[in-house]
Amino acid sequence: MIKGALSDLVVLDLTRVLAGPFCTMLLADMGADVIKIEVPETGDDTRQMGPFVKGESAYYMNLNRNKRGVTLNLKHKRGKDIFAEMVKKADIVVENYRPGTMEKLGFGYEDMKKINPKIIYAAISGFGHTGPYKMRPGYDIIAQAMSGLMSTTGWPGGEPTRTGTAMGDVLAGLSCAIGILAAVNGRNLTGEGQKIDVALVDSAVASLEIINMIYLVEGRVPQRIGNRYESTYPYDSFRASDGSMVIGAANDKLWQSLCSLIGRPEIAEDPKYLRVRDRVAHHDEIKPIIEEWTMGNTVQNCCRLMDEAGIPCAPIMSIDQVTSDPHIAGDRKMFVPVDHPVAGMTTLTGNHIKMSGTPAEIRTPSPVLGEHNSQVYCEFLGLTEAEVEDLRSQGVI
Amino acid sequence: MIKGALSDLVVLDLTRVLAGPFCTMLLADMGADVIKIEVPETGDDTRQMGPFVKGESAYYMNLNRNKRGVTLNLKHKRGKDIFAEMVKKADIVVENYRPGTMEKLGFGYEDMKKINPKIIYAAISGFGHTGPYKMRPGYDIIAQAMSGLMSTTGWPGGEPTRTGTAMGDVLAGLSCAIGILAAVNGRNLTGEGQKIDVALVDSAVASLEIINMIYLVEGRVPQRIGNRYESTYPYDSFRASDGSMVIGAANDKLWQSLCSLIGRPEIAEDPKYLRVRDRVAHHDEIKPIIEEWTMGNTVQNCCRLMDEAGIPCAPIMSIDQVTSDPHIAGDRKMFVPVDHPVAGMTTLTGNHIKMSGTPAEIRTPSPVLGEHNSQVYCEFLGLTEAEVEDLRSQGVI
Repeated sequence: MIKGALSDLVVLDLTRVLAGPFCTMLLADMGADVIKIEVPETGDDTRQMGPFVKGESAYYMNLNRNKRGVTLNLKHKRGKDIFAEMVKKADIVVENYRPGTMEKLGFGYEDMKKINPKIIYAAISGFGHTGPYKMRPGYDIIAQAMSGLMSTTGWPGGEPTRTGTAMGDVLAGLSCAIGILAAVNGRNLTGEGQKIDVALVDSAVASLEIINMIYLVEGRVPQRIGNRYESTYPYDSFRASDGSMVIGAANDKLWQSLCSLIGRPEIAEDPKYLRVRDRVAHHDEIKPIIEEWTMGNTVQNCCRLMDEAGIPCAPIMSIDQVTSDPHIAGDRKMFVPVDHPVAGMTTLTGNHIKMSGTPAEIRTPSPVLGEHNSQVYCEFLGLTEAEVEDLRSQGVI
Repeated sequence: MIKGALSDLVVLDLTRVLAGPFCTMLLADMGADVIKIEVPETGDDTRQMGPFVKGESAYYMNLNRNKRGVTLNLKHKRGKDIFAEMVKKADIVVENYRPGTMEKLGFGYEDMKKINPKIIYAAISGFGHTGPYKMRPGYDIIAQAMSGLMSTTGWPGGEPTRTGTAMGDVLAGLSCAIGILAAVNGRNLTGEGQKIDVALVDSAVASLEIINMIYLVEGRVPQRIGNRYESTYPYDSFRASDGSMVIGAANDKLWQSLCSLIGRPEIAEDPKYLRVRDRVAHHDEIKPIIEEWTMGNTVQNCCRLMDEAGIPCAPIMSIDQVTSDPHIAGDRKMFVPVDHPVAGMTTLTGNHIKMSGTPAEIRTPSPVLGEHNSQVYCEFLGLTEAEVEDLRSQGVI
């Protein structure tokens, strides 16, 4: 039994904050030996970002579980030598600095492939490593704005709206993991590594592909339309007596069932609402008809009755409900406790890619700063304890 | 030169609509031989879904470029035999039916691994293949509601808000591609395939990981807070004279630059706004101060001045602006023309994972229904043209 599907891969992880660490977290969960290389003394910025448990950042703990942690000063001559030795022995390097930073350090892809032609070098940045905007700083909110994602999220007459999570970062992290794993396969075919260049903006643009097609094909600019969907109705949110819920009665059969359930079977016969396109055109008439029924019931009652009638529906759950849900938290194990040496037992978000043969798992907590310096520099690189101590005293690690 | 990083892999693609086809599109863009297997006569539901170009669905064309297309009736005895032969020769099977459907057809993972122990079987569904909700239908809106994503998207006092794209589908498609490629690597280590089980709901939950941590660690339920961010300010949208823009002045230095730029250097000294946490606490006072300046300028002017001052900012772009942007459309090639035999030249969304050695490319348009029946059944399976003609006349393909 191997410890994960990627247990033969060594990843040098120079990433900080969210998009990069999210990518390498996925690789580490699946068994890769991810060696997170942090700046001596301070480490990843997120070590100083809340929420905190006993002074330890839960932001950091979540994104860096399963990784080994070392410190290394890449601006120091000896730090560069050590990193070059590590590149020789690694499969993958991942970073999310501004384009050009790695070149300045002497470790652009052209430099690294001279050290190890099989190295796979993956870079995540706001705008990518090419093009006129490449040097612009790329926070998540910038990507959500520039990609068109914000312009299509929100309500008619209301403001463009940011998705309530750093979705640009998450999409880029997932996409970079795909690029890396594809390159690992490609390396088996060609014997060579390559560079993967993933931009937050591009990743958000790719997430909009049906929305993009509406403009590219029809010339119509997609707008903010609240919770409903361009292509069918009722597929929207509806208020109940104690909260909101969503209903996805996407086809004729489900529409008929819904009309019966809410006691309005005559509506199902109304030619005004007969076909999907008719219901989309008259969504503003249909919503109050459905809400007349849902607002007389609790969310739970509505959902139970709809479930029984086979109509797709769901409560709009808050984060406290999600984290205690018997399916999501219970069976799907999307929240997993891990014992951290400083923070103690802490619940992290579990890996969502369920694999039957080599399950992704949370095996170890995130490293404290430099926790694996001796282990990595002695066992992986072959230095002596005295050499490691010298590096420490010189501020190299 | 190989035709892509995945050019040794054969994928049997039973997926329909969005999440599954998005996953296999990524694999096809990277060179996998994706054989899309559709129901005879009707095919993928999205063939009937707009937007259309000369009667061809752009929804379908975008998600199914680079794939070969065959028809096959999996309920027909001879259809099952043919599929079993294909499983013997394939690396990967992907489907996004309701859990249990493949078992009913005789091709659950336990069945398929008897035919080919090396097969990697990937399933995308609303709630996953385990747990109490597994049989519930899983449209994207259901996943956005159940995961907590909607509860944290939108405005204080306003309704929970759906992200303006089928984000649950996109996240699941990306995640499934990661699971498949990890399993390909794992198969090189163990000699065996495995089952990948990806749920739309889990994928959306995973996208919320910092948000989840706020509740899990602090017990505070994250709310809808518009476009601002929990951990720093000003990092929000601001109205200009002719539209909206975002500014990400995430740290003290950027805050000071911003105060100078807007002609309010004294604010930078004000102890009320000195540290990041102070600015988060007083975001409602800071926003109007910044908007006093931005509303006197156009978005373009504001962004130019901020760029010059090194302050991260961006216009909130609409889809027509994104698709014609010189960086996104021009240099990053996020919109790519392809010549379709029926629709003619059509612009599709390009692949966003940029690989230097084996670039992902749009090489062929999406197949018309059954376009590659002869090619696949004769060349890949070794049938004769007469046998294929017989299958056609019997309604098997």
